[in-house]
Amino acid sequence: MSELRKDPVTGRWVIISTERRKRPTDFRLEPVRPAPDGTCPFCEGHEQMTPKELLAYRQNGSAADAPGWTLRVVPNQFPVLRVEGTLDRQGEGLFDKMNGIGAHEVIIESPRHDATLATLDEGAVEQVLWACRERVQDLKRDHRFRYMIIFKNHGAAAGASLEHSHTQLIALPIVPREVGDEVDGARAHWVAKERCVFCDILRQETADARRLIAENADMVAVAPYAPRFPFETWILPRRHQALFEEAPRHEYAALARLLGDLLRRMNTALEMPPYNLLIHSAPVAEAAGEYYHWHVEIIPKLTKVAGFEWATGFYLNPTAPEEAAQVLRDART
Amino acid sequence: MSELRKDPVTGRWVIISTERRKRPTDFRLEPVRPAPDGTCPFCEGHEQMTPKELLAYRQNGSAADAPGWTLRVVPNQFPVLRVEGTLDRQGEGLFDKMNGIGAHEVIIESPRHDATLATLDEGAVEQVLWACRERVQDLKRDHRFRYMIIFKNHGAAAGASLEHSHTQLIALPIVPREVGDEVDGARAHWVAKERCVFCDILRQETADARRLIAENADMVAVAPYAPRFPFETWILPRRHQALFEEAPRHEYAALARLLGDLLRRMNTALEMPPYNLLIHSAPVAEAAGEYYHWHVEIIPKLTKVAGFEWATGFYLNPTAPEEAAQVLRDART
Repeated sequence: MSELRKDPVTGRWVIISTERRKRPTDFRLEPVRPAPDGTCPFCEGHEQMTPKELLAYRQNGSAADAPGWTLRVVPNQFPVLRVEGTLDRQGEGLFDKMNGIGAHEVIIESPRHDATLATLDEGAVEQVLWACRERVQDLKRDHRFRYMIIFKNHGAAAGASLEHSHTQLIALPIVPREVGDEVDGARAHWVAKERCVFCDILRQETADARRLIAENADMVAVAPYAPRFPFETWILPRRHQALFEEAPRHEYAALARLLGDLLRRMNTALEMPPYNLLIHSAPVAEAAGEYYHWHVEIIPKLTKVAGFEWATGFYLNPTAPEEAAQVLRDART
Repeated sequence: MSELRKDPVTGRWVIISTERRKRPTDFRLEPVRPAPDGTCPFCEGHEQMTPKELLAYRQNGSAADAPGWTLRVVPNQFPVLRVEGTLDRQGEGLFDKMNGIGAHEVIIESPRHDATLATLDEGAVEQVLWACRERVQDLKRDHRFRYMIIFKNHGAAAGASLEHSHTQLIALPIVPREVGDEVDGARAHWVAKERCVFCDILRQETADARRLIAENADMVAVAPYAPRFPFETWILPRRHQALFEEAPRHEYAALARLLGDLLRRMNTALEMPPYNLLIHSAPVAEAAGEYYHWHVEIIPKLTKVAGFEWATGFYLNPTAPEEAAQVLRDART
């Protein structure tokens, strides 16, 4: 059983998840190798290699856990948190912990092993976003959960343990600190100015245009003013809305279109980089409707070393966002 | 010229330092290769390959920037911040920035290319700590600086660009967020309980002993209760003191002894891991004497992938600290 523990100084929660390590002595963790041909559990025809599906988009009335799907959602076979049990909060002297209650799901984005978000058509990417929405709305009914992290590791260097394109969803009984900091910052801006800080950013960035990468009627892709990583990119909906899972359908279509475009630009300009993608949405229990604004963050992994910056929260970025935006604006798609 | 920029949502400052990249098109950053034999700028006899020394410990009255030293401190040849100029704070609409004023120095720990903190004798390690103290005390007189980061990247995988063992010091005109969060947390604990949270941790950990790794009369090495990374280790002085640079000499000796011991345990148990080492001390301008407690954090870099966790501030640790402490307690030194 994994455990959530709180650092008594900073208040940061971490998950201690010893089950995912193969051997107790195996401290040097290597990324899992891509499955050899024919043994990928996410390929069509291999449905029996995953836990039973929670959701699937199927044509021709095909049966569950059988071929005939365009997208499947399954529980993660090696979950970092488990859905069974009661959430048990405990103190340990000075320290605070909870048992590892949560959910950990995998959205298999395509039946094809070689598809990626950059090569899938717009409708298929929209389907991925819609599946995330459906799963979040379902998991929100479970009152043990405070936050759903939706993220994607693309490429072994970005942490992907399987090559076949997939997105992950983790439902947590706490709000992760990075999200909490964003929400706190957005609330403070609202209190001071009665405006959403993300709406302010959108206004300034679209007028200024130096950090603008691409846009359509509903969505804007920008290099943020103070990026932690080279080519860090945010995609924001123009319309103010705190919750990703409450966006109207046409915004998912617009996001799918802009995301595909952006990833193809990155593939051209940065030579098919590994990347992490995150959807930031307001926490479940927070009435953040006025001041939070959902968005997507894409962080290409361009440095081979994971430097000192990531371990300390102190970031040193060798690429100015104005330069990154220019490179991506000019890139072939 | 580099620039400090503030994220308008979270308030996190980052350094945009475009000078360190070799070519503007070189977005995929590779670690600099170890210098081939005879061309290491940190080796004795190569003093002309570095900027002029700021401080050196020398025997027999040898001349500056010439052989005969046991430790040298020089400005970084590729500084992320520059010491010349006036600190210029500016707004840019919604955004905030400063020009890249600061200092970036290198402490060359030994004239020998193959020495490491694990193989140097106790006196030499103590000298490294003493040099850090001297440089911090000197830089504190410059009122543009709010924080001095002292850190070490050991091994290319931990971000070291040169193989020859060295520590870095960066003086910043802002307080980095990770430090700010620690100070805020420690202050809140003090306000609530009138006790130092680190003193509380020391009391509980030494009584409990499950996360205790090694100790001596002045220093204690523990696996923290909620570690972000496998085998993350903190070394804390038993005596309450906010500022590293005001510790008495015998505490540096005790830290040198315990640090050498710990690094040798890690070398045995974890097969010579790359690591990051950080000294956490109170910010220059903060009267944190009562509630902050300086300490050292050591983070071995055991995962090849820099996963999703480091990019999001949400940490998933596959090794329980009780297990890590046990492994290090049992390791040969």
